[in-house]
Formats: sequence, C-alpha cells, structure tokens
Amino acid sequence: MKNLIVGQSGGPTAVINSSLYGVIREGFNRSEEIEHVYGMINGIQGFLDGRFMDMKELDNDTLEALRTTPGAYLGSCRFKLPDDLNDAIYPLLFQKFEEMNIGYFFYIGGNDSMDTVSKLSRYAAAHNIDVRIMGIPKTIDNDLILTDHTPGFGSAAKYVAASVCEIGLDASVYNTKSVTIIEIMGRHAGWLTAASVLARKFEQDNPVLIYLPEADFDQESFLASLEECFKTKNNLIVCVSEGIHDKDGTFICEYAASAGVDAFGHKMLTGCGKYLENLVRDRLGVKVRSVELNVNQRCSAFLQSETDALEAAQAGAFGVTSAISGETGKMVSFVRKSDKPYVMECGLEDVNLICNQEKTVPVEWITKDGTDIAQAFIDYALPLIQGSPKLPMKDGLAVYAYRKPEK
Amino acid sequence: MKNLIVGQSGGPTAVINSSLYGVIREGFNRSEEIEHVYGMINGIQGFLDGRFMDMKELDNDTLEALRTTPGAYLGSCRFKLPDDLNDAIYPLLFQKFEEMNIGYFFYIGGNDSMDTVSKLSRYAAAHNIDVRIMGIPKTIDNDLILTDHTPGFGSAAKYVAASVCEIGLDASVYNTKSVTIIEIMGRHAGWLTAASVLARKFEQDNPVLIYLPEADFDQESFLASLEECFKTKNNLIVCVSEGIHDKDGTFICEYAASAGVDAFGHKMLTGCGKYLENLVRDRLGVKVRSVELNVNQRCSAFLQSETDALEAAQAGAFGVTSAISGETGKMVSFVRKSDKPYVMECGLEDVNLICNQEKTVPVEWITKDGTDIAQAFIDYALPLIQGSPKLPMKDGLAVYAYRKPEK
Repeated sequence: MKNLIVGQSGGPTAVINSSLYGVIREGFNRSEEIEHVYGMINGIQGFLDGRFMDMKELDNDTLEALRTTPGAYLGSCRFKLPDDLNDAIYPLLFQKFEEMNIGYFFYIGGNDSMDTVSKLSRYAAAHNIDVRIMGIPKTIDNDLILTDHTPGFGSAAKYVAASVCEIGLDASVYNTKSVTIIEIMGRHAGWLTAASVLARKFEQDNPVLIYLPEADFDQESFLASLEECFKTKNNLIVCVSEGIHDKDGTFICEYAASAGVDAFGHKMLTGCGKYLENLVRDRLGVKVRSVELNVNQRCSAFLQSETDALEAAQAGAFGVTSAISGETGKMVSFVRKSDKPYVMECGLEDVNLICNQEKTVPVEWITKDGTDIAQAFIDYALPLIQGSPKLPMKDGLAVYAYRKPEK
Repeated sequence: MKNLIVGQSGGPTAVINSSLYGVIREGFNRSEEIEHVYGMINGIQGFLDGRFMDMKELDNDTLEALRTTPGAYLGSCRFKLPDDLNDAIYPLLFQKFEEMNIGYFFYIGGNDSMDTVSKLSRYAAAHNIDVRIMGIPKTIDNDLILTDHTPGFGSAAKYVAASVCEIGLDASVYNTKSVTIIEIMGRHAGWLTAASVLARKFEQDNPVLIYLPEADFDQESFLASLEECFKTKNNLIVCVSEGIHDKDGTFICEYAASAGVDAFGHKMLTGCGKYLENLVRDRLGVKVRSVELNVNQRCSAFLQSETDALEAAQAGAFGVTSAISGETGKMVSFVRKSDKPYVMECGLEDVNLICNQEKTVPVEWITKDGTDIAQAFIDYALPLIQGSPKLPMKDGLAVYAYRKPEK
C-alpha cells in the first residue's frame, strides 16, 4: 500500500482548504489503497526542508472546519521548479517521496502550481517512477484554461458582488453628486471585476461603468461616460480591474507612479483606483472616493459561495479517485453540462496544456465600448455564487481550523 | 390625532434602517395615537425642500427588508441648524410640521443629529409647541455619552473582528516574515479598532499590536515592538485607528502628507496605515502590506450583529412609545443590566447633555504601554457582536429595500 501527500501553493482563496478537505477525506475513505495521508507544510519548498504532517493528527472538528476556513491550512509557497529536468532537485524530491512510500501527490494551486505538477509528472514518466501526480485547481482569478471555472472564483465573485451592492447603498445616502471607484483584483483577466455586474438589481442601478483589462481604457472617454451617467443619477459606482491599461499598454496605475515619492524617498505606488479618484476630482470637481477591495476578496469566509466550497471539495476527492484508478499528470477540470439548471461534472485535462496559459474574459462578453458586461457573463457567473455554507460559530465569530505549531 | 415623521442623518451604518423599521412599525402599531407615519427624504435638509414620503407606500416585504438593509433608506444629510434659535429657519420648519399635523419627530443619527434634536426641542419648549422631538442614536464610532453603546457599533465591531481574523489567515500562509497593518475607522475614539482584539483566538495570536487614538503613538517604540514580536512569530498583524497621533498631537497620517503630490499636483493624502507600511519597509526591510478597512465597515449586511440589529429596532420603537407617553428632548439610551448573561434595557437621557460630547475608550482598557486591549473591553464588546440576522436572499445575494425614485 502506498501513501498520499498533498500540498498547497500560491495565493490563498476562501476555499483552497475545502479542496484539501476533499483530498484528505477521500484519502481516508480509500483505506484499502492508501495507508497514510500526509500534508506538505508550505508546499514543495517546505517539503524539501523535511516539513510535513500526518493528517491523522487532525481531530474531526478541525477536519470539518477546513471546509470553511480561508487561507491555506498547510501553508503555501511560491517556488518554481527548474525548467531543466536534469536538475539535481528532481532526484532529491523523488528520493524523499520514496522514503515516505508516496504513491500519490496532489498539488492544490493555480498556474504556477500546475507548472510544478507538469514538471514532476514528466520527470516521473521519463524515469518510470510510479508516483501519480495530480493538480487540483484553485485561483480567484478564474484564469486557468480547459476548465469552465476554477474553485475560489465563485466565492471571490460573490464577495465582489455583495460588497459592490453594499458600497452602492452606502454611497447613495446623500443627495449630492458623487463618484465611487472600486478597484478589484485582476491584473490580466477581468473575471472578478466582471462579477461586479451581479450587484446591479435594476436598470440604471450601480455599478454604472465596469472596466476590465481585456479592453483598452481611455481616460477622456471615461470622464465623458461619467458626465453622461450624471444626467440620470447622482451617485455613481465605477468598478475597475487593477490591471486596466490604455491603448498603448500603459497601466493606468503607472500614471500615478510618475508623480510622488513617499516620506522615505521611495516611489509612491498607488493603484489605478486612487489615480482615477484624483483624475475625477481634478476634472469633474465632484465628490469622489476610491475603495480598494483588498485581501478580503480572496479570504472572506462569510461571503463564501456554498457552490464553490462544495465544488472545491469535489475537485479534491475526484483527483484522489482518478489517481487511484491510474491517472497522472492531469488537472481536475470543471465541465458545465447546463446553465439552467446548473449542472457541473469533474473532468481531467492534460496539465501540460494548462500550465503557463491564461484564460481572459471573452471580448464578446464586454459591451458598450468596453464599459459594461453582457448577459452571457451573468448567465455564466450566477450559478457559481449560490448558497452560503453554514460556518461553525463561537462568540459571534467563525471557528477556523488552525494548524498547531511544528515541534 | 397627530402624525409622526422620522428622518435619518449623518453617515450610514449597517443597522440605521433597523431603527427606522422600529419607528415605523411602532408608529403603525399605535394607530389610536398616530394617524400617518411620514419619512423625511435626506433628513431635515430634504424636508425643508418639501421632500418626504408616506410610509404606508412601503409594501410589507420592503418594510421587513429594512431590518437588514445597510445605508440610509430615507437618504441622509449633513446639515447643522443655526445656533441662534431666533433664526428664520425655525419658524419655517415648525410651520411645515404644523401643515402636516406633525406631533412626533424622530431623528436617527449621531452627535450632529442630537444637536438638531436639542435645538428643535428647545425651540418647541420656548414657543410652547407640542411637537415631541426624540433622538434615536446611531454611530459605528460608539462615541455618544450616557449610553452603554450605540446601535451600529456592534455590527461594525463584528466586521472588524471577522475581517482581522480572515486577513490573519491570509497573511500567514507563507513561511517568511511579514507585517500587515490594518487601518480601522475612528478619528478620535478607538472603539472600533479595539474590537480587533476579538479576533485573537489564542495566546500570541494576531493581532499582536493594537493602537488607539486614546494613547500616544511612538514610531520607534512601534518598530521595537515589531522586532520583539518577530522573536516568536513570523506573520504579524497590527491594527491601528486612522486617528493615531504622536505625543505632540501630530497625526501619523500627516507625516505621509509632507512628501508626495499626486499626478495632478495636489498634495497626496494617504492614511496612517500606508505611512506605517512605508516606515516598516524602510526600517525593517520585511515584507509589509497595509489594508484599509474601508466603507464596508459601516455597511456590511453579511456581518451584521443580530444583537445590534434587534437593539437598533428596539431603540426606534422605544422612542415612539416614550414620545407618545409625553417625553420630548430625549435620546434613547442603552442601559446594561448585566454582562453575563447580557441584559440590556432602553432608557432616556436629556439630549442637551449628549450632543457635542464624545466618549472615548477608557484608558484603563488600554494595556501594555498602549499596544493592547484589556479583558474588560472584551467583556464589554463580546455580547454586542452575537448572532447573525437571516438576510432575505435572491440569486446568491441579499435582497435590500430600495426607495423608489421620487416623482
């Protein structure tokens, strides 16, 4: 009997631990094929330093709490394996696998993590090593190809939509003209910013303008659009991706950087939201504010999508089942069978085709000269934000799974 | 039979509409004493422009949705009545009240709104006008005197504590030293920042340092405290009030303003969080990030405290009952009868004693040379964040009460 090891890598999401839960539970369930379920601490990097834990250390409450604990329970890393498969790190890693009798390795992560899965599975194949290596996707950015969507996106999208709704209510209390610019994560792909359209409850409701990095941003057109919107509405909410850029490819946030230095003489870095706030104040003279939806976008437990959390766990479990049945070098994918009713199945894709690619929002889902989002996106995204998992609560706050300090 | 009018004023909170609900429901319930329940649109200012609505226009779903809708359903204003009670605005206002046969006026708001209640009730008394005028408190800042706490604080405190928990999970995934500085609302009173202590789940858990405006902030001591914390912990969360200042009274955010200008030549305004981020980067050379908990602090429906929402409605209803029984010139207050079990009763206080005063966090609740919060605060605040109201949901998002555009 072989052992299983699982690791987490890259930025955290609200449901990456839900995928971890899926892997562990299915690992435990398959006790005829799998003896021990181990976890790498801080991913491949920590594992190379000899850091791992046996998952049987988790009591049942902690294991169940994983389903709704944001972050990365096992700790994460940003570690890129060398492109040269002859590098000494590969035999070292597989020797460690052999010492621990590892037959299955699962890596939960985004693009870079799939690169790791690709390299390790190719190395194993080239050296006839029977360790089955699988990728479990996660990223709030929803930018992995060959999958309908990624675990983590639904919860982040729900956070964005709900927050934009709330900020819209907050911004509309006074009877004076105002602009609120909400900056949303997404450097190259605008999926999360597009989700702000879900906040719109009626015609002409906020957000009135939505800008993604998939379309060029023009400052003058933006100001003209605001003036147009003011004709029918006093309090305007504008949603922008952090990565919006003009037609020459210059990021809007770069325009801000040209000016100031901080109190320590370093170049002052601000986001595009802050820059646009200053632009609007300077040119339109109205009350203006920018809000940066910060890390809570990717770590909010209270705005988790239950659909997302369940699918994340399902992806983990499906990876284990597939590996046991002989698969390796694959990433678990989501295949949508239907929108209404929403039906999703897990599939498998060759991880080599996925890593280092990027899926952006289709241009036909961006409308009105790049200022709005089409119904097709709404139909796509709405099923992904449904339901709210029940969080274990204590003293008015959620109870999370915390890893005990290592000895 | 007389009519009732209610208005909202000042910044929005998560539960100001819950107080509005309380006033309207109790107004409807007392149909033997009260004929019509009206609402001022955009407070006193809108009312002076002839803008109001009859609350019977609200269908039952909308009325019930008010209980969990953040913002200010009736719209708000920032309008200070003149100190001179001989000003022409007073007879104008009371003439409008007379035309509408108003016998009861309720103003839901903070310090400035209580100033309005004080002036109008003094004018009415001086001129023997039988309009009963009552203040219903609301402010996330919790800075009104003569009340145990204010509606709005519990929900904002819950948002702060939950967000700090989540950011702590997010910040702890990598195995490298990092500092995350969370800037929390509160210019003069540190109540909300103090609530970040509720995020701490075990000894040495984050946040490791908490700074309120009630204590002087020293930059060198802060850096030394961080170095000390790094001895036992890699990922440090620090919570600061936006209004922290040094011993000379200089706001920490002012240190940032001295340096940069924005791309339009205007002085660059950043918060103290951003300044401290740059300070830590410059001096300690570790990974550092600042997060500004933005307007969501005061408008999050998903992190409403049920206790807060219920108490807010109770305050509104109690105000109506009291006014009908003859009270005027009072603010509804909260009187805590016991911590464990938590028992709270509504009371009444002379609004003239309350307006233009400010309640700060008692110095004995600030410990360890101004870097931490005492157990007494935890005992005080914990009952206020309990419970989560059930939000009406549709398509994965909360359903809110929206006011129809005026004709």
